[in-house]
Amino acid sequence: MLQGHNLIGQTASAAGDQTLQVFSTASQDNLPEKFTVATAAEVETAIAKAAAAFPVYQSLSPLVRAVFLETIAEEIMALGDPLIQRAMQESGLPEARLIGERGRTIGQLKLFAEILKEGSWVEAVIDTALPERQPLPRADLRKMLVPIGPVVVFGASNFPFAFSTAGGDTASALAAGNPVIVKAHPAHLGTNELMAGAIRNAIQKCNLPDGVFSFVIGEGFATGLQLVKHPQIKAVGFTGSFTGGMALYKAATTERQSPIPVYAEMSSINPVLLLKEKLEKDGNALAASLAGSITLGVGQFCTNPGLLFLINDAAAENFISELTTKLSAIPGGTMLNAGICKSYYSNKQIVAGQAGVTVLLEGDDASAAYKGTPALLEVSAADFMQNPALQNEIFGPASLIVKCADEAELQQAIRSLHGQLTGTVFATVNDLTNFSTAVNELTGKVGRVVYNNVPTGVEVCYAMVHGGPFPSTTDARSTSVGADAIKRFVRPQCLQDCPQEFLPDALKNENPLNLMRRINGKYGSEPIVAS
Amino acid sequence: MLQGHNLIGQTASAAGDQTLQVFSTASQDNLPEKFTVATAAEVETAIAKAAAAFPVYQSLSPLVRAVFLETIAEEIMALGDPLIQRAMQESGLPEARLIGERGRTIGQLKLFAEILKEGSWVEAVIDTALPERQPLPRADLRKMLVPIGPVVVFGASNFPFAFSTAGGDTASALAAGNPVIVKAHPAHLGTNELMAGAIRNAIQKCNLPDGVFSFVIGEGFATGLQLVKHPQIKAVGFTGSFTGGMALYKAATTERQSPIPVYAEMSSINPVLLLKEKLEKDGNALAASLAGSITLGVGQFCTNPGLLFLINDAAAENFISELTTKLSAIPGGTMLNAGICKSYYSNKQIVAGQAGVTVLLEGDDASAAYKGTPALLEVSAADFMQNPALQNEIFGPASLIVKCADEAELQQAIRSLHGQLTGTVFATVNDLTNFSTAVNELTGKVGRVVYNNVPTGVEVCYAMVHGGPFPSTTDARSTSVGADAIKRFVRPQCLQDCPQEFLPDALKNENPLNLMRRINGKYGSEPIVAS
Repeated sequence: MLQGHNLIGQTASAAGDQTLQVFSTASQDNLPEKFTVATAAEVETAIAKAAAAFPVYQSLSPLVRAVFLETIAEEIMALGDPLIQRAMQESGLPEARLIGERGRTIGQLKLFAEILKEGSWVEAVIDTALPERQPLPRADLRKMLVPIGPVVVFGASNFPFAFSTAGGDTASALAAGNPVIVKAHPAHLGTNELMAGAIRNAIQKCNLPDGVFSFVIGEGFATGLQLVKHPQIKAVGFTGSFTGGMALYKAATTERQSPIPVYAEMSSINPVLLLKEKLEKDGNALAASLAGSITLGVGQFCTNPGLLFLINDAAAENFISELTTKLSAIPGGTMLNAGICKSYYSNKQIVAGQAGVTVLLEGDDASAAYKGTPALLEVSAADFMQNPALQNEIFGPASLIVKCADEAELQQAIRSLHGQLTGTVFATVNDLTNFSTAVNELTGKVGRVVYNNVPTGVEVCYAMVHGGPFPSTTDARSTSVGADAIKRFVRPQCLQDCPQEFLPDALKNENPLNLMRRINGKYGSEPIVAS
Repeated sequence: MLQGHNLIGQTASAAGDQTLQVFSTASQDNLPEKFTVATAAEVETAIAKAAAAFPVYQSLSPLVRAVFLETIAEEIMALGDPLIQRAMQESGLPEARLIGERGRTIGQLKLFAEILKEGSWVEAVIDTALPERQPLPRADLRKMLVPIGPVVVFGASNFPFAFSTAGGDTASALAAGNPVIVKAHPAHLGTNELMAGAIRNAIQKCNLPDGVFSFVIGEGFATGLQLVKHPQIKAVGFTGSFTGGMALYKAATTERQSPIPVYAEMSSINPVLLLKEKLEKDGNALAASLAGSITLGVGQFCTNPGLLFLINDAAAENFISELTTKLSAIPGGTMLNAGICKSYYSNKQIVAGQAGVTVLLEGDDASAAYKGTPALLEVSAADFMQNPALQNEIFGPASLIVKCADEAELQQAIRSLHGQLTGTVFATVNDLTNFSTAVNELTGKVGRVVYNNVPTGVEVCYAMVHGGPFPSTTDARSTSVGADAIKRFVRPQCLQDCPQEFLPDALKNENPLNLMRRINGKYGSEPIVAS
């Protein structure tokens, strides 16, 4: 049963008098439950509890944190079908997709548990003392990554499980040893409450301090800004719009006395290069593959391929025609929420109205039913390069073809791109050789380069980079998916001449955790034999 | 012979009509040479050359970059005694210190060369394809760190070699594969020109592209801001004042269309905890040691111990008396420049005038001779906690004792501290056990914790962290000294299903560079056997 409360530490709380309801694009109506917006005092209490919990939580064994993450995963599974059903109502996403996304969310939690158990992620580096060194002795210096403090997480509407309440930001921040406060996403407040309940149960079962996790409900930016500007908050994870991300970024960098890191994943249009020989050989297959990727999840993926670059020739014309046909055969799908649906149609219209843009496939306007229908547009590289408005994201199942006259224009067009999460190259080996400059230009703009496959689908693994140069994120040094997401919520710390018995296990001579460490410049997991 | 020019790529250039001279606190007069301020057009050209050089420079073998760094080191040594003599005139620092600092600077360049040769710093992570996985196959995903683009470096006056033109920021940015533009420090323009000449020679000898290195001369903030706000600049390294660092930070985060990382090392007062049993046992030795550290380099170190915390008892009184005696016996020394000397005396006066502050040792005012004399002040913890002005850095040989009534007040006082580069603990094993909460509070505030030694002296090694929470730096996730300084100027990039022949060597199956890599979650340097 949904209560509509906030969770302030382990305490359900609904002190305010303003309530929110969730509008369902699936049922095309407001869902009945009312959710109480957190008061400023409740937000303050959540922060105070997080700050108080931090010293206790960070000093627990990493194995305790691993069990905690695994327990959250179990508790999520224990929510059973009601979680899936609620998320379907709130997101308009189909059941199979949500079951899959739940699996991914569980998988993320378990990956971080695995990383904690293995332990080497703390990057232990040891330079042993050189007492006899001339002209000066060297001290014993030992460094590792340590948690930074309470983290605020803003989830995304397009992944109500994997990028929200118990998603990757929360999992990685908790794994690193930081308390988390989630600003509940207003589009899936019921899903949020269920997920938060799973975390609360896990905290109780693992006997962790009150304040390791809270969530607060808010409307507009006020609640979020109160969180982000608070001196006890030490980092921010966000997935969402450019406007929202930049508001938080500005608050965190210039509206606080001490700036903090903001990991905002915002806006990416994921350019795709379709090179000559590959188009000639496989044009029809590429059209089918890209039509599927453009419309996957009704185009509501941050890695949705929004720009297709090609050099104008017969094979390109055939591909365009084939892609238009394929897309036109794909029916519209229910979009996540009313706002996203409205923006899809209006942003598409804005791009369609730019100088030189031709609409190849308009698609019906199904906005009355909150459905997004596929669309395809086309523009010359010359027009594209002159008009930054053509780089604004159309969140939904639309893509813009950029036709280049020749290789030189292709290079120039790619050089004009903003930063992106992904860049995709469809190419034969000959193409990669012949167009190496264009491919290198693309590589310089993106976090992940995909060869001969679509960019949608972000694997949760060790080597993933789901991040990229601005404006795709505010911090290209980070990834929000995969093992290294944990590195966002830590800082390095060096202990000089610390007595062995007071060192953290990761830095002790005997290497009790059996970590891979760097000792005097060499990697190894051997213990250090005290001299 | 000094020319007084800027270096725009490999070209000496002095198109402007404004010149600067360097005032020497050693000779108490302006040095005769005139240095021409760069025009906005010269700055623009330097940036354009850096941007053009980047794709070429980043694609060179890391071994070429290693040889480049070693060649810079050789060229610096080839400058011989004139470099030392010029730096003595410009900085007021003694010969032995500058010879030592040159050694450190050479050592830094060689450390990064070593890191490039070893190669594992790129953090290669590989998840091999799982084509048979159900329900979906896994792609081949390979990730490594890649350079980010042209970096602007602002050096510090207190280390005219090691933290300036060819210092740690420049060495690490070049090592990572980025072109560098140095904003020449106005306090040592001659030293800068000599050092830049060494880099220019090395570029020529190594046949590197024009634009890998430039320096520009400027007065005030205008030149620096032009550099930092330019869209082609991708990161900033800075060592200096809080005001200067924050001006750059703001420009880089909110006055640009795309924010960039700023690594500004700014303000740290380096708290020292003197715990009870240790003070009882070794009070006099600690006084001698700290008197040396407070006055080392006339107190002009970023790790200078500016705050001494102790619990008021007889041993503490004895220590204070002994420290006062020791400091009073140390003569004043020539300070780096007229501005720093003036600020030293005025900042000391401001602190001395705060409520509850007692001056234990005032020291003569030797500012007419540009000398700084040691000073010692004292305040109660209660007064300290109420007054943030007591946390403003006094750059010079002065320290403030904070007397705490008991352990609880010690904890509170430490909790009130801003972020710091270092925190020092003088303690017996019993003290560390008895005062563990206070020590943990300190640990949470600093980048490096030093046990039973002074914080001055920053080892250039693998495990160093010379960084810390704000305001000691703008980015606690980084170090500006030691091996990991290179990590500031890179970002992770993932290549998905990239054909072997187009992969960088670091990510190839056969592991031709013999790197330590993480493959499917396991560390090792073995090649991958293609299935």
